[in-house]
Amino acid sequence: MAGEEEAVSNKQVIFKDYVSGFPKESDMFLTTTSINLKVPEGSKAVLVKNLYLSCDPYMRGRMSNLPPEDPNFSSFQPGSPIQGFAVAKVVDSGHPDFKKGELVWGVMGWEEYSLVTAPDQRLFKIYHTDVPLSYYTGLLGMPGITAYFGLTDICSPKEGERVYVSAASGAVGQLVGQFAKLMGCYVVGSAGSQEKVELLKDKFGFDEAFNYKEEHDWNAALKRYFPEGIDIYYENVGGKMLDAVLLNMRPHGRIAACGMISQYNLQQPEGVHNLTSIIYKRVKIEGFVSFDYFSQYSKFLDFVVPSIREGKITYVEDIAQGIENAPAALVGLFSGRNVGKQVVAIAHE
Amino acid sequence: MAGEEEAVSNKQVIFKDYVSGFPKESDMFLTTTSINLKVPEGSKAVLVKNLYLSCDPYMRGRMSNLPPEDPNFSSFQPGSPIQGFAVAKVVDSGHPDFKKGELVWGVMGWEEYSLVTAPDQRLFKIYHTDVPLSYYTGLLGMPGITAYFGLTDICSPKEGERVYVSAASGAVGQLVGQFAKLMGCYVVGSAGSQEKVELLKDKFGFDEAFNYKEEHDWNAALKRYFPEGIDIYYENVGGKMLDAVLLNMRPHGRIAACGMISQYNLQQPEGVHNLTSIIYKRVKIEGFVSFDYFSQYSKFLDFVVPSIREGKITYVEDIAQGIENAPAALVGLFSGRNVGKQVVAIAHE
Repeated sequence: MAGEEEAVSNKQVIFKDYVSGFPKESDMFLTTTSINLKVPEGSKAVLVKNLYLSCDPYMRGRMSNLPPEDPNFSSFQPGSPIQGFAVAKVVDSGHPDFKKGELVWGVMGWEEYSLVTAPDQRLFKIYHTDVPLSYYTGLLGMPGITAYFGLTDICSPKEGERVYVSAASGAVGQLVGQFAKLMGCYVVGSAGSQEKVELLKDKFGFDEAFNYKEEHDWNAALKRYFPEGIDIYYENVGGKMLDAVLLNMRPHGRIAACGMISQYNLQQPEGVHNLTSIIYKRVKIEGFVSFDYFSQYSKFLDFVVPSIREGKITYVEDIAQGIENAPAALVGLFSGRNVGKQVVAIAHE
Repeated sequence: MAGEEEAVSNKQVIFKDYVSGFPKESDMFLTTTSINLKVPEGSKAVLVKNLYLSCDPYMRGRMSNLPPEDPNFSSFQPGSPIQGFAVAKVVDSGHPDFKKGELVWGVMGWEEYSLVTAPDQRLFKIYHTDVPLSYYTGLLGMPGITAYFGLTDICSPKEGERVYVSAASGAVGQLVGQFAKLMGCYVVGSAGSQEKVELLKDKFGFDEAFNYKEEHDWNAALKRYFPEGIDIYYENVGGKMLDAVLLNMRPHGRIAACGMISQYNLQQPEGVHNLTSIIYKRVKIEGFVSFDYFSQYSKFLDFVVPSIREGKITYVEDIAQGIENAPAALVGLFSGRNVGKQVVAIAHE
């Protein structure tokens, strides 16, 4: 039969079971199934070939057994593929807006081919292809949206303000620093190796950067780089780093809480002790979720695409090769093994 | 000489030395000096007779040896009178805007008579005298401004939203609850005795109230009163209460951090462990200081004075008698001894 002739093998990365503590490669396993490369007759589904898989810290949350409160943060299904952002090419489509051969990004399974049953809600079309396609997992995808709207909408940076970025060489942090520099801010970042610190200063144009692993007293380090205090803290880390930052915020300072990677693998999160200082300093701490800004994606592109073409924004990626290496790449995020945005290339166009 | 004839005795409450831990009555002492009841020739000072002294939790901060960062939060001067809000009557004035016999409120020394050398910055005139004058240390003074602008400016309450107030029978809390009710919210408060809980429900019209000392599990208590979660938390307490609240906030919830009285007397503040939840819930925590809203005092009066006259707002005060009892009244705040706003009446008009 014709339908059967279209079936091909489909390697998948399966989520084994809920995780507590640090995730391990063995929390996932590879399997090979088969998939029909045609969407079901009469459906509006889209069938894609995945090209790049995105490894992002928020995925750790979905590996826990979560209460079913927020559909954006539901747990992965044990026995089913890991879910994450990916760049893909349309192989077949029952949806009028998506045509065979078009490029898209959105949330897919970790597998060679994915059937996307609700493409309206999950897929963004890729129009600009004069940049590396992998950028749509980072600079031009969810991390870019996170960096831009977290900085602009939550923190309203003004020229001359002092911005501190933790996890600053990561997928989001490197962009926050560069966007803040474009907005005329003084920017300091921290990262976990000398190599990353040099990236921050030499490649991303941060004013200063330091290796948090080599500083015994983060409060003292921040006082050195921000003798007059911090106006804006883009929070990727949480815990003790947040405590040190709170001691160094300026009056009316703003903290955008994007993630707290230092806390994700702890059974009991660290206590934050210096919150009382937010009162007399009139500091705001605000959590946000990038999904809330996806509807403003085109506004973000209007800002960022010209900046990329003019060479004002650069992006560093750490690209693992092959779906077999996806579990190790994801796990590596939590020890800071990646340098820049962690991507997994699994196919060529 | 004429000047000497105007000198009268002036009892003062002197701050002995910087405090760590819980303040004690013996951290203050009474003394009697004399004061000339005329302002210095040619000065713009105002000399007032103090009628009511205000005891407020923020004063604990000024008993510590603070870094000299913010003039609103400088330490008390050992050997000088305690400073705090008071209601007073003008006895003599070199300032064209303040006339003998007028009533004012503002920051004064804890003493029978105070010489106010910068009245422009420190004194508010009292125009409405059909309410108890002591209200200008509470409902119509700093605590009222704190309650109103903290609730409206930081939390933007909408009709039907769910509001939780801790330390709810205190000077600020009782007002936050009543203001939120006027704005159409569902309001629950907590306090530290059965008597206070009854006040909240019977006198202030809170929808529900509970005694936090009788609840072993504050998370469970909040889940009981807020099965669908909390939209607005007016934070007066900090520490473990904040941790329980964070577990119960609704998406896009707002926390106005007005004070954290549970933390003021600790050498090492408690850790807050549940901050990561602000991210996926998009919760905002914002500190604020009532001084920033003093310029909008008349706007507040326009809202609150008609509500008082119409009987829509009530206020409970705990009035100690005599300047000798001021130290005990202040210290009592930190064990929750007061029922309602703590005031000290030291003279009649």
